[in-house]
Amino acid sequence: MEISLKQASELLERAANIVLTAHIYPDGDSLGSMLALFHSLRAAGKDVTMLLDDDVPKLYQYLPGQEKIVRPRSGLNADLLVVLDASDEERIGAVKTAVFAPILNLDHHLSNTRFADYWYVDAEAAATGEIIFKLLGLMNGKITREIAVCLYTAIATDCGFFRYANTSAATMRYAAELIECGVQPHVIAEHLDTRPLANIILLTKALATLQLYEAGRIATITLSAEMGQITSDNTEGFINYPRNIEGVEIAVLFKVVDTNTVRVSLRSRNVDVSRLALAFGGGGHARAAGCTLNGTLEDAKTKIIGAAVARLKESPV
Amino acid sequence: MEISLKQASELLERAANIVLTAHIYPDGDSLGSMLALFHSLRAAGKDVTMLLDDDVPKLYQYLPGQEKIVRPRSGLNADLLVVLDASDEERIGAVKTAVFAPILNLDHHLSNTRFADYWYVDAEAAATGEIIFKLLGLMNGKITREIAVCLYTAIATDCGFFRYANTSAATMRYAAELIECGVQPHVIAEHLDTRPLANIILLTKALATLQLYEAGRIATITLSAEMGQITSDNTEGFINYPRNIEGVEIAVLFKVVDTNTVRVSLRSRNVDVSRLALAFGGGGHARAAGCTLNGTLEDAKTKIIGAAVARLKESPV
Repeated sequence: MEISLKQASELLERAANIVLTAHIYPDGDSLGSMLALFHSLRAAGKDVTMLLDDDVPKLYQYLPGQEKIVRPRSGLNADLLVVLDASDEERIGAVKTAVFAPILNLDHHLSNTRFADYWYVDAEAAATGEIIFKLLGLMNGKITREIAVCLYTAIATDCGFFRYANTSAATMRYAAELIECGVQPHVIAEHLDTRPLANIILLTKALATLQLYEAGRIATITLSAEMGQITSDNTEGFINYPRNIEGVEIAVLFKVVDTNTVRVSLRSRNVDVSRLALAFGGGGHARAAGCTLNGTLEDAKTKIIGAAVARLKESPV
Repeated sequence: MEISLKQASELLERAANIVLTAHIYPDGDSLGSMLALFHSLRAAGKDVTMLLDDDVPKLYQYLPGQEKIVRPRSGLNADLLVVLDASDEERIGAVKTAVFAPILNLDHHLSNTRFADYWYVDAEAAATGEIIFKLLGLMNGKITREIAVCLYTAIATDCGFFRYANTSAATMRYAAELIECGVQPHVIAEHLDTRPLANIILLTKALATLQLYEAGRIATITLSAEMGQITSDNTEGFINYPRNIEGVEIAVLFKVVDTNTVRVSLRSRNVDVSRLALAFGGGGHARAAGCTLNGTLEDAKTKIIGAAVARLKESPV
């Protein structure tokens, strides 16, 4: 059942025993939203448990209270299971079967499947953290410095630290209020900018593979297993390096997954690269898309660069 | 004479013929502030000229109106010369002697020398752009989309796109209002993230020189002439790569200026590196400092790393 944020606050107020969870492969928004709600509900005298079917990444271990997040145990009864920032049931892993309680889902993903008993989905919100900020206002919860740090992290990470297209005037005003509650933006930025040494070494190797085509309008970088362990986490942002080069219209990141599989990420300034990805069985948005090709790296390069050149010729910018 | 911002607005309202200028080696704040004021004064029917004793860097050529900025000609009479974001007279180069007019200085640098006939200095402002935003409010100037783009650029660049310690709640609220005037934050971010190819190649070479000392608590990178042209512009931000590595307490960037001169930049998380820089005739802030050493790169490395190790031992974190 779709409910208003006011109704969500009433559900929380009526419940005494509440379990919170968020999506696996947790990010700043899922963790920050869960922790902010946790601190606020605890201050209101509720019995609150945070379950997560995953580890908290080291990057987010500065978030106050994260050490209280535990793995799901089976057979837990509660008045309410609050699912944060997850658009479908699969995204919460084993928590789904471990807790017996009606589900309240708070989320900002357009793709939300409306799987819960009660849902509030605001696809205009840059982050679930924005929804939690409004919710705490409705519940008259005090925004302590701890809560503010969690919400600021939630919001800032999901809008690329105020760089993405989802950054709205409202986003900036939430940030302003959270700064007034005690957040130091530069301290959050320093935490979030911290990278493992292996990540910088991998970046160095990736940048060394930079290649340009079509008089510098196409730029590619390539990652392969011999460079070190490659996860989607530790290569996040790498594609921005070719993308940000002056004159580059299409940027491509090739990731050699195994001898017969190459994952391809595409970015552009103006050209619609989702059509390019679609031609190879992938998809995405006009300026950020991806696909996976069977075959060798050389095959993938030939195909993708050929198609990119064709796209550039079709839609000269 | 120190004046209020209201008095500054009155000076501008009384003047018919106004020259605007900003500091040489212009940045986003000086250019954005000058252009925002230019558009607003022109809309108010003033005769306005923008003089700059420098080129507009390519990075900022998306700013509306920047093509109207000209080099100073000698012997120009005006009712008022407005000096933006410059803390002393030397910073405006030849404009100083080219224009005959009383000087109004609007600035946010703590180090401002109060050189002007009239000055308004707000060291709490994250950017001169924040001062101009308030000033336009006092003058009842409409914030068009053009003006908003200039002011957003001014503010965002001087607070490291909302990452530096000077980012305040007020900064975020100005940003919110400017978004409501038509700024698209992601478009500004894309402009500002654009880098020349040579810059990425230089970064790749610099990262390849990464060295760690003291079990990873000190990280260094080195730039030398054989890597390509090195300016303070095109290496900005490079020191953040060693600085952001997990476990690094002191980051050092060595720049080989010539066979006998090495410029050293220092960053830290907690240790006071200004004391380290001071010991070599340099200076700076506790967490960002620098110095210049005579001698070879090897000499400089031995001295600086030795001193950094000693600092770490004195103040274990």
